[in-house]
Amino acid sequence: MADRVYNFSAGPATLPVDVLEQASKDIVNFKETGIGLIEMSHRSKEFMAVAADTESMLRELMEIPDNYKVLFLQGGASSQFFMIPMNLLGTGKKATYLNTGTWAKKAIKEAKLFGDIDVAYSSEEQTFNRVPLKDDYTIDADSEYLYFVSNNTIYGTQFPSFPETEKDLIADMSSDILSRKIDVSKFGIIFAGAQKNMGPAGVTVVIIRDDLLDKAPANTPTMLNYKTHADKDSMFNTPPCFAIYGVGEVLKWLKQQGGVEAMEARNIAKAGLLYDCIDSSDYYRGHAEVTSRSLMNIPFNLPSADLEAKFIAEAAEVGLMGLKGHRSIGGCRASIYNAFPTEGVEKLIAFMKEFAAANKA
Amino acid sequence: MADRVYNFSAGPATLPVDVLEQASKDIVNFKETGIGLIEMSHRSKEFMAVAADTESMLRELMEIPDNYKVLFLQGGASSQFFMIPMNLLGTGKKATYLNTGTWAKKAIKEAKLFGDIDVAYSSEEQTFNRVPLKDDYTIDADSEYLYFVSNNTIYGTQFPSFPETEKDLIADMSSDILSRKIDVSKFGIIFAGAQKNMGPAGVTVVIIRDDLLDKAPANTPTMLNYKTHADKDSMFNTPPCFAIYGVGEVLKWLKQQGGVEAMEARNIAKAGLLYDCIDSSDYYRGHAEVTSRSLMNIPFNLPSADLEAKFIAEAAEVGLMGLKGHRSIGGCRASIYNAFPTEGVEKLIAFMKEFAAANKA
Repeated sequence: MADRVYNFSAGPATLPVDVLEQASKDIVNFKETGIGLIEMSHRSKEFMAVAADTESMLRELMEIPDNYKVLFLQGGASSQFFMIPMNLLGTGKKATYLNTGTWAKKAIKEAKLFGDIDVAYSSEEQTFNRVPLKDDYTIDADSEYLYFVSNNTIYGTQFPSFPETEKDLIADMSSDILSRKIDVSKFGIIFAGAQKNMGPAGVTVVIIRDDLLDKAPANTPTMLNYKTHADKDSMFNTPPCFAIYGVGEVLKWLKQQGGVEAMEARNIAKAGLLYDCIDSSDYYRGHAEVTSRSLMNIPFNLPSADLEAKFIAEAAEVGLMGLKGHRSIGGCRASIYNAFPTEGVEKLIAFMKEFAAANKA
Repeated sequence: MADRVYNFSAGPATLPVDVLEQASKDIVNFKETGIGLIEMSHRSKEFMAVAADTESMLRELMEIPDNYKVLFLQGGASSQFFMIPMNLLGTGKKATYLNTGTWAKKAIKEAKLFGDIDVAYSSEEQTFNRVPLKDDYTIDADSEYLYFVSNNTIYGTQFPSFPETEKDLIADMSSDILSRKIDVSKFGIIFAGAQKNMGPAGVTVVIIRDDLLDKAPANTPTMLNYKTHADKDSMFNTPPCFAIYGVGEVLKWLKQQGGVEAMEARNIAKAGLLYDCIDSSDYYRGHAEVTSRSLMNIPFNLPSADLEAKFIAEAAEVGLMGLKGHRSIGGCRASIYNAFPTEGVEKLIAFMKEFAAANKA
């Protein structure tokens, strides 16, 4: 893979080379069946085994308790924004949301179609540069759940620890699932689009406590009721087979890396290198407050927008791709999920030092 | 591809070998970018070009008029069962449905959640072995649309021509899109899951006349409103990138084959071989009435269920896979979509003749 570049894209994002190479083989002829992975019936014993193995590896890696179902759904994390309140709320029911960025705002907008939504915290006025601490908000006693986004891809903030409450936690972990050890039993629902830390775009993992499966109103469309998919092991209709397979291959790789704890240690060290570079420089400024910093997405600014454009262009020339920040805050952003190699961060840091020396503000 | 078997699966189904081999390369390193197709940002110029090319090839191959939008959605054809009435109906509004099989029944069930549904025809009492002729049903004057399934995968029936009415036609073409020339301008909406005639599972193509985009009630969740996706060229959220790419590759192949008309001629000839074999035998019986026969899915029976089980097992031993009928009607089924090679049908016919001679009832 001599031609491979470092891809800092926020998602779809870098996958392990081993996963790409295995997929490359399986897609043409899956396990010597004479049928390619992507043309194989989802009811075949071969694909059923892929789906079952993927679920069981996720259960093992995240230590998911038996009273939780794991669903592989379509429609992206964006579809969970409405499915959660559609299934769990109803007239007069209340839920609490923490507004820590673009994706939280979108979830709040959809939830308001289904219930009484209390936005208990917002960092919008400070360009979402932090997540709340424990005492920054209160949760109404009659709230059904507390919804938050564990890592905010665009603004580079991440909850260092999770809210402590008796309420069910519901978390969008699209951009940090499997990047650190968590206690699933504290959550009602965890969901994540695969395309950042888990695999190719096209599948959303939903981990849901089983008592929450029966709450949908009777007039809920079949495909939008979590119970439909739970009862059929995500095979009620044709699933997104290739994306599920891709998640399975990433999970195999993650196990080989030592699992979630090993990955967490590596992520802390890897992001630490880049934050050290930013903190030891007058040239680069991080967007997030220090105590809210994400280990996955690191947005930063240079002294001017012109220098940022030059930085992004020259970085691309040396194989450091996808460093442009999200259009809502501009600047630069390095997304360094599980599969992003430490060597790529080291190369970026070397480039940042050279660029700063060569381009005084 | 010496090891390749003939895969008669109803879907996900056989894809052209050229498509599998191209995907195998692109997945590791897309067009020498140093980034694999499945780890590439959906906003990259490379992927945006893939999506745009896929749409433009579909427009060209199906001669889609300019006042139609082409959407690439998730959730399978099953999600269209509720999205259509959710977007187009509302309290007191009526629609007409033709019940020609399992998928039509499922669509009817979902539609009843959103409006007054008139099932104007059903062949359920005769195990869905036919589709209606023109005079077999009437459409209420105040019906918003006429919904039908153009090809019924399980029962092997297909509308030889489409209903003639002033009403908007809405068709589930999941199992026969691109298999024959159609006049898109007669339709309000055409939709199809990709995994039979168009590509890998994980994307649903929706072709919708643009005046139907503005009909959703105000309380429709953002992701369920067709307009959301039309306004953003199916990039409102992260699309199922690999599945869209796969459709594009299949469309390139289809163009190389001479387009839809060439494919239609080939499909008529290919299915004709198998129907001739069935019709010239006392041993095999087709499920569908002759005038309703599908060119895509051919269910048939042997003299007994025991012989059918033996047939399926022995066929698999000689590389004829996936011939088991759907559990709802049993027996055997050969699905022979666009990409299924004629040589595979010829091999099946030779096997059928040998089996019948060797296994008298």
